[in-house]
Amino acid sequence: MKERKVNNEKLKIIPLGGLEQIGMNMTAFEYGDSIVVVDCGLAFPEDDMLGVDFVIPDVTYLVENYSKVKGFVITHGHEDHIGAIPYVFQKLNVPIYTTLLTMALIEKKLEEHDMLQSVKRKVVKFGQSINLGDFRIEFIKTNHSIQDAAALAIYSPAGIVVHTGDFKVDYTPVFGDAIDLQRFAEIGKKGVLALLCDSTNAERPGFTMSEKTVGATFDRIFAEHQKQRLIIATFASNVDRVQQIINSAAKYGRKVCLEGRSMVNVIGTAVELGYIDDSGHTLIELDQLKDYPPEKIVLITTGSQGESMAALSRMAANIHKKVKLMPGDVIVFSSHPIPGNEKAVSNVINELADIGAEVIFQDTHVSGHACQEEIKLLYSLLKPEYAVPVHGERRHLLAQARIAESIGIPKERIWLLHTGDVLELGAGSSRIIGKVQTGGILVDGLGVGDVGNIVIRDRQRLAEDGIIIVVMTLEQHSNHLLAGPDLVSRGFVYVRESEDLLEEAARTVREAAERCLDMNITDWTRIKTEIKDELADFVWKRTQRRPMILPIIMEA
Amino acid sequence: MKERKVNNEKLKIIPLGGLEQIGMNMTAFEYGDSIVVVDCGLAFPEDDMLGVDFVIPDVTYLVENYSKVKGFVITHGHEDHIGAIPYVFQKLNVPIYTTLLTMALIEKKLEEHDMLQSVKRKVVKFGQSINLGDFRIEFIKTNHSIQDAAALAIYSPAGIVVHTGDFKVDYTPVFGDAIDLQRFAEIGKKGVLALLCDSTNAERPGFTMSEKTVGATFDRIFAEHQKQRLIIATFASNVDRVQQIINSAAKYGRKVCLEGRSMVNVIGTAVELGYIDDSGHTLIELDQLKDYPPEKIVLITTGSQGESMAALSRMAANIHKKVKLMPGDVIVFSSHPIPGNEKAVSNVINELADIGAEVIFQDTHVSGHACQEEIKLLYSLLKPEYAVPVHGERRHLLAQARIAESIGIPKERIWLLHTGDVLELGAGSSRIIGKVQTGGILVDGLGVGDVGNIVIRDRQRLAEDGIIIVVMTLEQHSNHLLAGPDLVSRGFVYVRESEDLLEEAARTVREAAERCLDMNITDWTRIKTEIKDELADFVWKRTQRRPMILPIIMEA
Repeated sequence: MKERKVNNEKLKIIPLGGLEQIGMNMTAFEYGDSIVVVDCGLAFPEDDMLGVDFVIPDVTYLVENYSKVKGFVITHGHEDHIGAIPYVFQKLNVPIYTTLLTMALIEKKLEEHDMLQSVKRKVVKFGQSINLGDFRIEFIKTNHSIQDAAALAIYSPAGIVVHTGDFKVDYTPVFGDAIDLQRFAEIGKKGVLALLCDSTNAERPGFTMSEKTVGATFDRIFAEHQKQRLIIATFASNVDRVQQIINSAAKYGRKVCLEGRSMVNVIGTAVELGYIDDSGHTLIELDQLKDYPPEKIVLITTGSQGESMAALSRMAANIHKKVKLMPGDVIVFSSHPIPGNEKAVSNVINELADIGAEVIFQDTHVSGHACQEEIKLLYSLLKPEYAVPVHGERRHLLAQARIAESIGIPKERIWLLHTGDVLELGAGSSRIIGKVQTGGILVDGLGVGDVGNIVIRDRQRLAEDGIIIVVMTLEQHSNHLLAGPDLVSRGFVYVRESEDLLEEAARTVREAAERCLDMNITDWTRIKTEIKDELADFVWKRTQRRPMILPIIMEA
Repeated sequence: MKERKVNNEKLKIIPLGGLEQIGMNMTAFEYGDSIVVVDCGLAFPEDDMLGVDFVIPDVTYLVENYSKVKGFVITHGHEDHIGAIPYVFQKLNVPIYTTLLTMALIEKKLEEHDMLQSVKRKVVKFGQSINLGDFRIEFIKTNHSIQDAAALAIYSPAGIVVHTGDFKVDYTPVFGDAIDLQRFAEIGKKGVLALLCDSTNAERPGFTMSEKTVGATFDRIFAEHQKQRLIIATFASNVDRVQQIINSAAKYGRKVCLEGRSMVNVIGTAVELGYIDDSGHTLIELDQLKDYPPEKIVLITTGSQGESMAALSRMAANIHKKVKLMPGDVIVFSSHPIPGNEKAVSNVINELADIGAEVIFQDTHVSGHACQEEIKLLYSLLKPEYAVPVHGERRHLLAQARIAESIGIPKERIWLLHTGDVLELGAGSSRIIGKVQTGGILVDGLGVGDVGNIVIRDRQRLAEDGIIIVVMTLEQHSNHLLAGPDLVSRGFVYVRESEDLLEEAARTVREAAERCLDMNITDWTRIKTEIKDELADFVWKRTQRRPMILPIIMEA
């Protein structure tokens, strides 16, 4: 208690996601009675989260401190930074502040959830600041694989904290300005308490190449394939990438057609807001494709990650309604597979190879994240007292910690936080003072949080060896067997060719049931357990499989 | 019929696996009444083959032509070349011919399946030939990531075919001789009808580095980490890799301990047969670890692919019974993730990072497969009339086809086969004359082939959204409802927090059942369909999920 006065001059940093995985980025900053939250992202499910669509952060801490929460500040418009907004804002309706394109993408989401009217929003320009309780937040221009990405300078009475968001240093960006290094330097001169810096590429030495280098590759590909149709798969949100394809198309006299729902959506928004320059009038609709010969067309499509329902995957599987691939078509993957998607991408490439299409993926992508030298540059401009690596798996955070140490930040001032840690920072002092409730809430269809560990474990079990259901009907009071026991299985063995096995299994169950009834066991739970154990034993011995066994007893 | 005479001078090449995927390598060569089969491998399951342990080739064609099959010739001892032997040889017992180490690894498998007595085997030396019906097979020394790998020259009256097996060109191998390029040249001079060449790395330009370069890296790692414990994860079958670790350990005064069942097995066999030189007596048992300080130890372990039950994964998760990792331990991944394993490997690296271990994976691995320049070298020495790319996914086969074309083989003499195609080759003529039955047979536990498409589809469905079971008991003849309908679900929603939903679902089912009975519908199939449709509709509207719905009606 005696520390209360000192506490008032300290700032709390509470990551609510983004430190154990790629995605679900969300960090709360708390000073006195003010909380501001940076980003509100979702994560894509891990391989073992069967049937889950995506994961959103648990915001119990924010709900419990609702009156303190002054607003959300969003760094850029990628799903892992904005995707949880429609879900979180059902519990927590506070204003959102962000840049123009980011806001437009958020508004699309809110509209889909019929929440556009209820959420207060304010668009902020680079260089501009907003006041939120005890905080002032300044938006600083950075570069990333989507336009309008911002770093945030968070001014508090305890000091200035800089949060980079996702960023890279691109001296020659395709659209707009390069990252505002001068402003970082100015803020650095004022004195920075802590830097929360993007760790995604912290394991990679060197410097991330400029987006413009991809444009040069596109020009070369267009020049070398003037008699073939071009199909380029990339991320829907990479507006600059699409711009560069449009530029090459204009230069080489091709028309550009967008395909895939998210591609049409995001690029449509970018065109409306003036983030895409199509003064050469290259863009055409899908229905106009037939008016041009193949060699005058470039299709820009979703599906660069091998997603099974995306446009490119449907083309490769020959189930796309409007585009039929032909031998000689040139498919460009303007992307790298995100870890975990390698095999799906490879499967699509195999299908394309079988069609006789040419596949190109050399020099057709650059990352949107800073490598080691860029991270060092930011540290050198800002000279923070503390380093708090964010955005990445543990290996990436650790890699950034090593970078921070290598350029002179003492080890004890580098905080490798876990989600939920409450880090208290003041000039010359830092410590973890507690832990708040956090976690991933699974979203499956319309259900938010109704799929948890038990359901997922059951799905894993069912996926592995299927299920055997044992049903029987007992007469009320007498416990006399009226029907069954019958066996039904799904996902266990091919029934028609395993009649003997299933016959024996049924006998095993019948004997177990009769034994229980002969012994006058009336406790159904015990009867079920007996049946389950005997059947599990039999099945394991005969097949070395462990299907879920589900005895159901009905009463008539 | 009039072609029969000509046919007799032609050779049939029939791939029974290995052309649509990595793994399951098996190719039949047929001339007149003789068939020889090269390799007998398994494939690891695709991501959507839920619960499947591995996949073996369908050998119906060989069984139907049993009397012609003179023997199996095996190129090397990797699972994708020998793993299916215990299963295939239950249907087809013919002699096996291969090199010493390969045979020892096959014998381990046969022993596990109690088949050692029943299968005839003959060890062949490099340069030696064996006669099998109309064929003569010569074993030619190559290099690969396991010792004793052979290419095969298959002499037939229709001409010589060369099958490379998996290979690379290593001028400075760790053990034994370099690939016998002179012999390839000699055979090339005689005239080669067709070359079946490894395509695994055909997309990669340049030359695969020598295994010895990894040894140099090991020396550097040992020199730079003399005060830390070293743990090196690699493939159990990479005997040369283990030899190099033993060499570095001897040089830097460390003891070597093997961990993981397959590591102990394979390296044990290699030591017995003299393929490993431990004249420095570095090898110790796991139980002796405690007698040495950590910095005097190097552990060689399985788990380089992030396999959940492998030794390294258990160490990283802190559930290994005998090895407890400490901050400062150095973990070396002497491997690249096989496509599909990237995320599992990354998860292990994250766990290691959290423990505070240092993780190294730079320059610690070289491939065992030939890159583009090595493939060109083989073509140039052999100058085959026809090219038949093998070992790889479609993209890899296509890449090799492009290489073959680039060095002068006419396009119409390059055959991109599919598994099961029967390619008929003679001097100056080649065509696909038919297709034989092939496919992947799924092995799950003790079951071989009892899990097929239907079972897999059910598992996928169960994995995605779980199952809802509806049970009811009807009175015989009267169709009077005696018990139920009751609803039981697994893997669908968390039942305790979804009482309302399940209550409503039960009502929906009850109403559907009662309506059917009121209408005197006696056809149970129809009653089940009604219940299924109504419930599926209700569930989709409320949750946007599609669990499997399984109505069970019992008769009392």
